[in-house]
Amino acid sequence: MTDSNPVSRRRAIALAGVGVAGVAGAAALGGALVRGAVDEHDDPAAGSTAAGAVTFTGEHQAGIVTPAQDRLHFVAFDVVTKDRDRLIQLLKDWTAAAARMTAGQDAGPVGATDGILEAPPDDTGEAIGLPPSGLTLTIGFGPGLFRDAAGKDRFGLAAKRPAALVDLPNFPGDTIDATISNGDIGVQACANDPQVAVHAIRNLARIGIGVVAVRWSQLGFGRTSSTTQAQATPRNLFGFKDGTANLKAEETDAIRDYLWVRDGDGPAWMTGGAYLVTRKIRMLIESWDRTSLGEQEDIFGRVKGNGAAFGRANEFDEIDLTALNGDGDPVIAVDAHVRLAHPSVNGGVKLLRRGYNFVDGSDGLGRLNAGLFFIAYQRDPRKAFVPIQLNLARHDAMNEYVRHVSSGIFACPPGVTGAGDFWGSTLFA
Amino acid sequence: MTDSNPVSRRRAIALAGVGVAGVAGAAALGGALVRGAVDEHDDPAAGSTAAGAVTFTGEHQAGIVTPAQDRLHFVAFDVVTKDRDRLIQLLKDWTAAAARMTAGQDAGPVGATDGILEAPPDDTGEAIGLPPSGLTLTIGFGPGLFRDAAGKDRFGLAAKRPAALVDLPNFPGDTIDATISNGDIGVQACANDPQVAVHAIRNLARIGIGVVAVRWSQLGFGRTSSTTQAQATPRNLFGFKDGTANLKAEETDAIRDYLWVRDGDGPAWMTGGAYLVTRKIRMLIESWDRTSLGEQEDIFGRVKGNGAAFGRANEFDEIDLTALNGDGDPVIAVDAHVRLAHPSVNGGVKLLRRGYNFVDGSDGLGRLNAGLFFIAYQRDPRKAFVPIQLNLARHDAMNEYVRHVSSGIFACPPGVTGAGDFWGSTLFA
Repeated sequence: MTDSNPVSRRRAIALAGVGVAGVAGAAALGGALVRGAVDEHDDPAAGSTAAGAVTFTGEHQAGIVTPAQDRLHFVAFDVVTKDRDRLIQLLKDWTAAAARMTAGQDAGPVGATDGILEAPPDDTGEAIGLPPSGLTLTIGFGPGLFRDAAGKDRFGLAAKRPAALVDLPNFPGDTIDATISNGDIGVQACANDPQVAVHAIRNLARIGIGVVAVRWSQLGFGRTSSTTQAQATPRNLFGFKDGTANLKAEETDAIRDYLWVRDGDGPAWMTGGAYLVTRKIRMLIESWDRTSLGEQEDIFGRVKGNGAAFGRANEFDEIDLTALNGDGDPVIAVDAHVRLAHPSVNGGVKLLRRGYNFVDGSDGLGRLNAGLFFIAYQRDPRKAFVPIQLNLARHDAMNEYVRHVSSGIFACPPGVTGAGDFWGSTLFA
Repeated sequence: MTDSNPVSRRRAIALAGVGVAGVAGAAALGGALVRGAVDEHDDPAAGSTAAGAVTFTGEHQAGIVTPAQDRLHFVAFDVVTKDRDRLIQLLKDWTAAAARMTAGQDAGPVGATDGILEAPPDDTGEAIGLPPSGLTLTIGFGPGLFRDAAGKDRFGLAAKRPAALVDLPNFPGDTIDATISNGDIGVQACANDPQVAVHAIRNLARIGIGVVAVRWSQLGFGRTSSTTQAQATPRNLFGFKDGTANLKAEETDAIRDYLWVRDGDGPAWMTGGAYLVTRKIRMLIESWDRTSLGEQEDIFGRVKGNGAAFGRANEFDEIDLTALNGDGDPVIAVDAHVRLAHPSVNGGVKLLRRGYNFVDGSDGLGRLNAGLFFIAYQRDPRKAFVPIQLNLARHDAMNEYVRHVSSGIFACPPGVTGAGDFWGSTLFA
């Protein structure tokens, strides 16, 4: 019985006395223990391709051109400290934890189960035995980090705010809920297993206690965009393929021109980064489901089946916005979604979209609370999301069936390059 | 241009003029078109084992002893009609749609993309190309179907209400939100792809417009229970294995004694069915995450690592509730969760649990809104869930970290046996 006496069940105590944040902060990038060597979870998502690890370090952050994973947990934090050093330490601790978790390790070097009994574990344990599952963690800084709602420059960053990090305008028809919008810091977790994505965000929140607080958070599934040419275009909850012309990782010229921030674009700390816009778009699916197939297709300007634009045979056939039908009317209506969202009517600008479907239960009015959590990365929102969304908000026939209820914009710094580097190092340098 | 002219893009019109409900109702069980023959979705969950179909018909409903799938969409409906015949017709229409969707077909025989342009499609389309993904749909009838809140017997069913379909008591500590509790009809959709589960519930809601309205709905992931011996015990969001002693499909004697309703148990229409209890259990994970490993383990009475009960080496070693430590105290504390939930302290009664983790964003107070959506099937809740939960609610050390916020009970009829049969046929006979 001695072994089982709770008082005597002591574990490795090499790190005794090191608190949660300290443990994470002490961990070298890429160091130490691999999470649960035995895969004890028979999750079908843990297949050979979907289970692997995505490299955390690099010139750019992972989770942007990375082939879109199938599950999302996005979180926006408010920073609740006024202490710049504590914020920097948290970013260092988070970086160490993110490097570990994306490699399939526990959030901290001690782990969920092997610490001393007198201290909280430095990992919460629900991902024990799960493979990396393609986890990426991507951070961005919101306008509030540079100057808070009261106009105060809490962290001495106001002069470093990029002009491209605009306060998004109120677009026509917007019904934004401020309580689930914006935030000082946003983190996108994408993985092929929702438990892995949730575990990552939950542990970042745990590590951040006292420095940040969760402002809002969103789960998503069944990605709505493909970010590589190898990925088929998935279907959104309207049942349509959308985003055929999405910016793909293979389009190196377009990626250079429209995705990554370049030298001279603004403050140097953003070079190699990108701007992230999130929009939670509620779909009025009960109304949509009572709409005729013809009207649905007219709204999109696409055939529902194979996703071909009107006038074309296949999804990836180049769209012809000039074609007229026998009556002399445009084959693709002037208010059709494919027309208004197409780069050729938006000055050639492209967005890299990697959104997700969501269902957040019901709305208390007999309807599912469902839709699209839109995520788009770009070099400059003033030339990309803002004009495109203005165009859509003014003219898109789809507006009858959607409501934008949450909005966020974040400046995502370049990637972490190696040991000693941390999320936001260029901003806080 | 002629082929692409919207006006001329007509499709198969064999079913012209048949409305949504009529189409579904006319479909023979198990008939017709297989959804998207080409798997155009590269979902990792669409692997060989997880992608297959689960047989819809049988003596018992699928989705109970079926190996627990990894994703959940549960919905509770209020019946909004007073017309018994319309309700019966909906149950017939739903049965036909459920048989089709669980086989990987569109919800209706026309499908999402091939109908006439003037009518809404009889499938919403977001699951085109996705395999069956182990989808099961399991229906249950709540107390409100037998007598509504005003005491009215809307459908002439009051005399058929089983005594075992109790109104659950208010358990000590309950903080139940009535707006996300109960319901006249509950449907559990489980699948290995969330988009498939969501698609199924969404199409049932679509077919039910005017007869039922969504009361509440819940998504879940990373099942928390194993229902067969081949499945490893997963971890809940406390990071622990729980439910080791769960009723498993292979335990045929226990399944007979504790799961399926038998002749003589109550009204004959429930023979072969089971009673379902749902509880949404919010976990105060931020508090839990600041609790020491030793206290976490004491609360469970288990080691966090391999899930062994205190005093035992491995998870499935038989628990010893009588063992004392050197001080003469119980090795497993009197208020430990494994003790209080164990069949041996609950008259030998077992539940078949198949719950799921959930994260519903954040709660507006800086915390993730996360926890366990508990699902349990049983032969008689008066002898199973109710006394077990009373025991837990009074004594469980875990209560400090959980809040029960939603509650439901449903009588799940026996399975649909073949052509012409429908969900609830024994009740409405």
